[in-house]
Amino acid sequence: MNRSITFILAGVIVLLAAALTGTLIFMKNQPPQERSFEPLVEVKAMEPDSSVWGQNFPNQYDSLMKTKTNNADTKYGGSSAFSWLERDPRQKILFAGMPFSKDYNDDRGHANALEDVNATKRVNWDVNDPKRTPGTCYSCKSSDNPALWAEMGMEAYDKMAFADLSKQVNNAIGCANCHEAGTMRLIVTNPALEEALKAQGKDWKTFSRQEMRTVVCANCHVEYYFKGDGKYLTFPWADGTDVDSMISYYEELGFKDWEYPDAKTPMLKAQHPEYEMFTQGSTHYNAGVACADCHMPYVRDGAAKYSSHDVHSPLLNPVQACGQCHTDTDYVVERAGIIQDQVAETKIATEDAIIDAINAIKAAAANPNADAALLDQARKLHREAQFKWDFVSAENSTGFHNPEYALKLLAEATNTARQAQMLAAQSVGDMSLLATGVYYAPPAQ
Amino acid sequence: MNRSITFILAGVIVLLAAALTGTLIFMKNQPPQERSFEPLVEVKAMEPDSSVWGQNFPNQYDSLMKTKTNNADTKYGGSSAFSWLERDPRQKILFAGMPFSKDYNDDRGHANALEDVNATKRVNWDVNDPKRTPGTCYSCKSSDNPALWAEMGMEAYDKMAFADLSKQVNNAIGCANCHEAGTMRLIVTNPALEEALKAQGKDWKTFSRQEMRTVVCANCHVEYYFKGDGKYLTFPWADGTDVDSMISYYEELGFKDWEYPDAKTPMLKAQHPEYEMFTQGSTHYNAGVACADCHMPYVRDGAAKYSSHDVHSPLLNPVQACGQCHTDTDYVVERAGIIQDQVAETKIATEDAIIDAINAIKAAAANPNADAALLDQARKLHREAQFKWDFVSAENSTGFHNPEYALKLLAEATNTARQAQMLAAQSVGDMSLLATGVYYAPPAQ
Repeated sequence: MNRSITFILAGVIVLLAAALTGTLIFMKNQPPQERSFEPLVEVKAMEPDSSVWGQNFPNQYDSLMKTKTNNADTKYGGSSAFSWLERDPRQKILFAGMPFSKDYNDDRGHANALEDVNATKRVNWDVNDPKRTPGTCYSCKSSDNPALWAEMGMEAYDKMAFADLSKQVNNAIGCANCHEAGTMRLIVTNPALEEALKAQGKDWKTFSRQEMRTVVCANCHVEYYFKGDGKYLTFPWADGTDVDSMISYYEELGFKDWEYPDAKTPMLKAQHPEYEMFTQGSTHYNAGVACADCHMPYVRDGAAKYSSHDVHSPLLNPVQACGQCHTDTDYVVERAGIIQDQVAETKIATEDAIIDAINAIKAAAANPNADAALLDQARKLHREAQFKWDFVSAENSTGFHNPEYALKLLAEATNTARQAQMLAAQSVGDMSLLATGVYYAPPAQ
Repeated sequence: MNRSITFILAGVIVLLAAALTGTLIFMKNQPPQERSFEPLVEVKAMEPDSSVWGQNFPNQYDSLMKTKTNNADTKYGGSSAFSWLERDPRQKILFAGMPFSKDYNDDRGHANALEDVNATKRVNWDVNDPKRTPGTCYSCKSSDNPALWAEMGMEAYDKMAFADLSKQVNNAIGCANCHEAGTMRLIVTNPALEEALKAQGKDWKTFSRQEMRTVVCANCHVEYYFKGDGKYLTFPWADGTDVDSMISYYEELGFKDWEYPDAKTPMLKAQHPEYEMFTQGSTHYNAGVACADCHMPYVRDGAAKYSSHDVHSPLLNPVQACGQCHTDTDYVVERAGIIQDQVAETKIATEDAIIDAINAIKAAAANPNADAALLDQARKLHREAQFKWDFVSAENSTGFHNPEYALKLLAEATNTARQAQMLAAQSVGDMSLLATGVYYAPPAQ
């Protein structure tokens, strides 16, 4: 009997082992488990309606919806739609002849992006040509974009008139701009970003999650331009993402955003180059910090911990935002204030220098006897100075994202602007063009 | 018997209690115990010979002696005596007409201070007047000073000729410059520092030990000037220790260090304003870090732990220096490098701008028909621009002690220099004075 029990037990063990092995082999051959949650609803690929995603991720969705009303301001920025042209009238002069001189309000939260782009006077401003504004202007404003780009391709999208594309663009920035439905992983959705990275030999699909927590912001928070007649959305990164490389890129291309009235300078408008500013050797970036670490800090709601999608200035919730790494948040807020005060003051001095250059170039350009070579050199320096200034000014951090780089750029911009002024004076031999500080009379709009 | 034992015991207890009380009262009335060690030798007050102090503190003394030979360099500074005039020939032009254009070597370690001041061509340079250099030049070079100041007073000290004072100055910087013998506490020994603090309503005797670990460095590492005919050592801090306040202080006083040749600009020479740069809202200072935390970090020798007195750049021993607070010293060294690269590059651009201004002012000053008011205004701006540049350039950190402030100052200096150049051109109506980048021909010495 002992022997037969032993025999039976041995048989059972063999069978169990075989079953276990089979199960393991079966599991191994299954596709990898890409998500660890059971969704309440299936979200279709590139679903533009964030409220559908919100059923599976109510905390993230609720916090995203807060960007509709998070209109608090910091000392220099924030999320209200205050007018830059009223706060700093020098900018009316700096952007004369282009739409930013007519309407330049500070950006509100993500959920207002679509409403604000439809309302700004910077689109559809040409009453004689209601289709002049290209659809490209919607590229950073809507969660409808990933599906539209997939459907029609970015080339066709960009060729449409803004007015015609409006009907298909109904949702503000949302889940589909950064996430892949189903896996919820972070993805590059803007084809222009994918192309710009590829031009640098980079493939975002090889990036770590922490890298993606910065790169997805570059879907929009970058310098870009509209290439050619098709207004093809392009990032000027082929030579590098530092300012000098972008200027030389535009120079080779012979590109201008607009011509400065009377001065005839071929100008460049910087957009919102937060990604380039931050990644240009800033202390936080080099330390491995991602955009989302500060702007989408982990927060708690009861027992749930999630990344807040109520994106805004970390100065408005420093304990949550800075406190993830820094123990003394009072100190870091004070520190940010010192940095921003210094950058803001330096920035105004740069604006004065550029305006002095503009006045000189305008006067010289009106003189038919001006030395054309000297005047063109003055224009080249005006273009460079203003782009460097604008790179700091349009960037949403008043230099905090990269204080040393911001201040270095402002120093260069001021120097370049003064040299532009001197060249303009030389081009006509008119000493009166060396006057300084004549900024106080913005041109009538 | 039980009763008599109880009685005896009670008596003993009463006697013991009385004895204990008496002892406590006696101890309470003793002078406070000011040191917790038993010295091997008694060090007399203001003992100039550091080797005497060294018998009690061999580790501190041995490390101080290392400053004799710690001649390693960093990328932009260090402790060798490399020539600034060879490394950056622009400085020959910037300091033309004053001793720094003849001999400007980088500072070596503390133990070489006396040897180096005796050897530099910046003292006793006037062969016609061998007593022209005042004794004041020894103020930061010797541990003989505290006793000499106590004995003769700083006024008499400063009135002596350098050549005459030499006999009494035999020891390089040492213990007596910062410590009180006996208690070893940190003290202000330079009367000029005590007076400058008092002018701001500050009494260093109320400072914490951590504050003193910065303030004792201000015995020497500051901006100063020689006041009046008596060459009285004075720090220009009455209006504040920021650069603008110091410029307005010098302006009110009508002070100049020298007159720039041909240009006739009344110039200011910045000394080594590490204290002012660091304390002007820098991130490390605001975080409570003292000079000694980085430059004199705690080190170990066997079981002994002491503050290293081998003072030099923390970039030469980052694990010890930065590692007291930062876990990733590779990162912070890289960070310091990025900051210094940006400051160094911006500094050169500022130098070019100032030299352009100098060339223009010199040419204008040679023209008897120059508009005197415009030319004087140009000189005023030249003076301001060069002092701001020099504040960054002479300061031993290539901006690291306060990156944002350094870059802001350079931006202002460049702007001011360009305006000086324009005013000079206007004063004579000569367009050729607007030439830029003409720095390459240093004047013959």
